Amino acid sequence: MTGFDADDASAFIQSYVDDHGFLSFLDLDVESAGDGEMTLRVPYDEKLTNHGAGEGNVHGGIAATLIDTAGGLAVRTALEEPVGAGVATIDLNVSYLRPARGDLVADASVVRVGSTVGVAEVSVTAEEPDGDTEEVAVGRGSFRIFN
Amino acid sequence: MTGFDADDASAFIQSYVDDHGFLSFLDLDVESAGDGEMTLRVPYDEKLTNHGAGEGNVHGGIAATLIDTAGGLAVRTALEEPVGAGVATIDLNVSYLRPARGDLVADASVVRVGSTVGVAEVSVTAEEPDGDTEEVAVGRGSFRIFN
Amino acid sequence: MTGFDADDASAFIQSYVDDHGFLSFLDLDVESAGDGEMTLRVPYDEKLTNHGAGEGNVHGGIAATLIDTAGGLAVRTALEEPVGAGVATIDLNVSYLRPARGDLVADASVVRVGSTVGVAEVSVTAEEPDGDTEEVAVGRGSFRIFN
Amino acid sequence: MTGFDADDASAFIQSYVDDHGFLSFLDLDVESAGDGEMTLRVPYDEKLTNHGAGEGNVHGGIAATLIDTAGGLAVRTALEEPVGAGVATIDLNVSYLRPARGDLVADASVVRVGSTVGVAEVSVTAEEPDGDTEEVAVGRGSFRIFN
Repeated sequence: MTGFDADDASAFIQSYVDDHGFLSFLDLDVESAGDGEMTLRVPYDEKLTNHGAGEGNVHGGIAATLIDTAGGLAVRTALEEPVGAGVATIDLNVSYLRPARGDLVADASVVRVGSTVGVAEVSVTAEEPDGDTEEVAVGRGSFRIFN
Repeated sequence: MTGFDADDASAFIQSYVDDHGFLSFLDLDVESAGDGEMTLRVPYDEKLTNHGAGEGNVHGGIAATLIDTAGGLAVRTALEEPVGAGVATIDLNVSYLRPARGDLVADASVVRVGSTVGVAEVSVTAEEPDGDTEEVAVGRGSFRIFN
Repeated sequence: MTGFDADDASAFIQSYVDDHGFLSFLDLDVESAGDGEMTLRVPYDEKLTNHGAGEGNVHGGIAATLIDTAGGLAVRTALEEPVGAGVATIDLNVSYLRPARGDLVADASVVRVGSTVGVAEVSVTAEEPDGDTEEVAVGRGSFRIFN
Repeated sequence: MTGFDADDASAFIQSYVDDHGFLSFLDLDVESAGDGEMTLRVPYDEKLTNHGAGEGNVHGGIAATLIDTAGGLAVRTALEEPVGAGVATIDLNVSYLRPARGDLVADASVVRVGSTVGVAEVSVTAEEPDGDTEEVAVGRGSFRIFN
């Protein structure tokens, strides 16, 4: 059993996000936090989209940012000291599956957490205004844990 | 020989960036563009940094965004029709080497461009105010080309 | 609906494997093939293991080979012409979770197959002689499809 | 300065390889070893090649194995205790650039070695019988170091 408290975590992380220039620019919303699980949402906004050939598609850096952030937070929830520990990304990868047009929702799940390295898988889906949902990216992060 | 014109490319891309909500939020600067090469800079800014354990470190999503953007643009410069072609990221990966504290400069180089897939490698260095420069991330992108 | 026939696929692939010098050296066994799914096994064998510090652990190249092979075959089962089409790996990634000591079983599932690119996720578990099963690696491949 | 001795390392590693079932099956040859550098070769052999659509191309698992092995050994040469330390792959990635037809030569270079994690980049070229050389894959590994 870890030190993770599901009742407080979402509010705590949302407060962190709201104080973070970059993450608050994305209007990042903490949808849920569980033991080894994390769901984050970035609402669709024209300011995040490309022009020209990919007009209206959310920039790929947003999905990468979500995978890094949700994966690291998911690992953090699985630690004995979720708040006090240090978590630094070692490696990040993303496969882009479809153009991202809609709210982006990242669901991260811990694959393994050891004493020094944690790994999380993340699926990013786009929720379009008409309610259609498509997986637009999958990725994975490895994180160095400092207790 | 490709359709790339070095004299016009930097200005053209900078104009695209300045019209792009997310990329202009980063104050992304096109330092140079060559045939199969692209250098982009994101100035250090407190709004891009983390708090708590990693206080002052630029969020990892920024390096990922730079690798995706610089890599895709480098591939684009190597195409017959750099502006008209479509370029969509297939896969992106990043290894984080050190905390990123300073201006982030991404140097992308094309590894190979075929008729349908291009690959670029990217090195991200941090230039600190005292002039010290350190490599903080390396990554690579594979891009689908639509002519 | 794809051109995949589950009754014939396993036998066909096993025959291919048995004629393949490298894959038959691994004693690779086709456990099952479905529409967008593929399960391959490499039995534990001392010849595949490391010495010294990692004595008895199966070399990491075997899990990478399984992820590449099972992922590509899973994509192939989802094509209209599973046998006639060409499938070439664009990108491959692997996260190693634990030392691999036991039979390695790779379960691949297609994430998306488009007209030119397919993506598959793969989980590799080790089945130890005492029946214990652990996930030892996870990975993903992107594949170029030539119809 | 590290504990690496260039005069002894190649012979030591070659001896390890020759005692390793899988690596000796590949006829893996240690071409050179330097401080943070490693070059390995796998001679072209029909037993390592695919059939059917990719007839004559070396299986992708071989390049992945070379990147993992050369990258890990390059990191090892940069350690204080190259032989005594433990080095375990955390993450591995490969981009396949061209069909591999010829001897495969993997050149690995350390990007960074810290106290617990090391990263190496690897380029794999194919040397064809007519002397032509092409880069067929690039990749990178992150390795956990146990001193």
